[in-house]
Amino acid sequence: MKLKPLNDRVLVKRLESEEVSAGGIIIPDTAKEKPMKGKIVAAGPGKADDSGKIIPMTVKEGDAVLFNKYAGTEIKIDGVEHLVMREDDILAIIEM
Amino acid sequence: MKLKPLNDRVLVKRLESEEVSAGGIIIPDTAKEKPMKGKIVAAGPGKADDSGKIIPMTVKEGDAVLFNKYAGTEIKIDGVEHLVMREDDILAIIEM
Amino acid sequence: MKLKPLNDRVLVKRLESEEVSAGGIIIPDTAKEKPMKGKIVAAGPGKADDSGKIIPMTVKEGDAVLFNKYAGTEIKIDGVEHLVMREDDILAIIEM
Amino acid sequence: MKLKPLNDRVLVKRLESEEVSAGGIIIPDTAKEKPMKGKIVAAGPGKADDSGKIIPMTVKEGDAVLFNKYAGTEIKIDGVEHLVMREDDILAIIEM
Amino acid sequence: MKLKPLNDRVLVKRLESEEVSAGGIIIPDTAKEKPMKGKIVAAGPGKADDSGKIIPMTVKEGDAVLFNKYAGTEIKIDGVEHLVMREDDILAIIEM
Amino acid sequence: MKLKPLNDRVLVKRLESEEVSAGGIIIPDTAKEKPMKGKIVAAGPGKADDSGKIIPMTVKEGDAVLFNKYAGTEIKIDGVEHLVMREDDILAIIEM
Amino acid sequence: MKLKPLNDRVLVKRLESEEVSAGGIIIPDTAKEKPMKGKIVAAGPGKADDSGKIIPMTVKEGDAVLFNKYAGTEIKIDGVEHLVMREDDILAIIEM
Repeated sequence: MKLKPLNDRVLVKRLESEEVSAGGIIIPDTAKEKPMKGKIVAAGPGKADDSGKIIPMTVKEGDAVLFNKYAGTEIKIDGVEHLVMREDDILAIIEM
Repeated sequence: MKLKPLNDRVLVKRLESEEVSAGGIIIPDTAKEKPMKGKIVAAGPGKADDSGKIIPMTVKEGDAVLFNKYAGTEIKIDGVEHLVMREDDILAIIEM
Repeated sequence: MKLKPLNDRVLVKRLESEEVSAGGIIIPDTAKEKPMKGKIVAAGPGKADDSGKIIPMTVKEGDAVLFNKYAGTEIKIDGVEHLVMREDDILAIIEM
Repeated sequence: MKLKPLNDRVLVKRLESEEVSAGGIIIPDTAKEKPMKGKIVAAGPGKADDSGKIIPMTVKEGDAVLFNKYAGTEIKIDGVEHLVMREDDILAIIEM
Repeated sequence: MKLKPLNDRVLVKRLESEEVSAGGIIIPDTAKEKPMKGKIVAAGPGKADDSGKIIPMTVKEGDAVLFNKYAGTEIKIDGVEHLVMREDDILAIIEM
Repeated sequence: MKLKPLNDRVLVKRLESEEVSAGGIIIPDTAKEKPMKGKIVAAGPGKADDSGKIIPMTVKEGDAVLFNKYAGTEIKIDGVEHLVMREDDILAIIEM
Repeated sequence: MKLKPLNDRVLVKRLESEEVSAGGIIIPDTAKEKPMKGKIVAAGPGKADDSGKIIPMTVKEGDAVLFNKYAGTEIKIDGVEHLVMREDDILAIIEM
């Protein structure tokens, strides 16, 4: 069983803090809005423009991404914390 | 007698918690915004774009879907809890 | 004398609770937002799009419809309660 | 001297309560939002669309109309109460 | 020295109350939103539409107009009270 | 070193009160929203329209302008007070 | 490892106060909204317009920029304070 996000939504697996601090990116403790790291598990087809044409997504399955802490809706899949959010809530792709 | 949702609205039958926890997706108790599972019972034709052309729906009758807890308007049909909501309130299709 | 709703507005006669509970649709007492049943008495021509072209209405005179409790403006015609609302306030057409 | 409303605005003469209750339309005392009756005294040319083209008005001078109680800006002309409002504040034309 | 309003703005000289009540238009004392009379002293070229094309103004220098009391920004020119406001804040042109 | 404003932003040098009152324009002390005088020091290329095409600016370097008191972001350059604001915050060009 | 900002977002390295005051631009202590200096470390490809076409960015990697104090989301990379913000939060490019 898997989730297929609608429109421009993505399903993101939140990465652990251990992983987050690894690799040089440290989320500051006192930041007003703390970004978090995650991995795209599934991506929707994209949002329809005003004429119904689908605008393709920038992110794809497997991408490691940074997103705002308060973005999206939480959901547990097999006990693991995931989030469903819109692509626009993603700040940046982490390239390695 | 049946309901025919208008525009981009769908009629969703809310699935029981037993069904929700089956299959690996567990809705966290403490989530700020808890998504819920349901089944599309009827779907509207789609929203008209700025020139009046209908943009077709992504979900269809029979789809199992996840949606935000506070989405839509509640209605009981033959004693069973249903919701009328906009397609954009649906987070993801659950594929099995 | 009759009312001719403007643009995408409709004139709806609110149906009695007795009629509402007949036919299997029961409006829950504790619902956060309770939909109500009514009958379209008159429908406007439709909303103009950005270029002034009229987008035709989905509902028509005689349709039984569900709408949100707080939609529209109340008006009594010959002692009977009616509502003037926008088509977008209608949730679904009740087919029989 | 007369007023020429701008864009999609209309100048409406508010009709007396006596007139309002005549003819079968009675405004309920306890309605959350009470519509009122009036007569169009002057109508603007219509609103410009995004490309500057004028979208013609639906109402015209002489039309009896229903409008929301709190719509528009009050103005007295020769001691008679009038309102300047946008066409979209008009709910319906009263045909006789 | 003169002011050249930008885009769809106009420079309006507020007319005195004496002038306002002359000619049959009396501004009610208890109105929730009192319109005021003024004369267009200078008008901008018009607002650019989405493609940068200028939509011409409806009002022009010399027009007597009605506008909402709280519209615009006050400025004194040679001791006389003026207002800079957008054309859309003007309710109607007063024709004589 | 100089500043190049982005999009439809301008860099404005605020003119002294002495200069403001000179030339007949006096800013009223009790105005709800007091406009201020300034000189355009640098202007951006203009805002991109929906298709990415640049809509050219109306104001240019050297123009004397009126703007709302609370517009823009303050910045000191070589000890002189400047503001970075959007062109739409400018009320009028002062021609001399 | 590096960050690739999405859409019209940029990754900005905040410049130290020492650097900020150098070069003639002094950020006032009492300004209601204080702009800050930074350097573009990475820029996204640009925002998609309504038809999905990418509108190219104005700023590029290496640009020194001014931005509002409260813009963006803070993130530390290898202990250095960075911000992810939208291009529209940038006020001006500092040319040297």
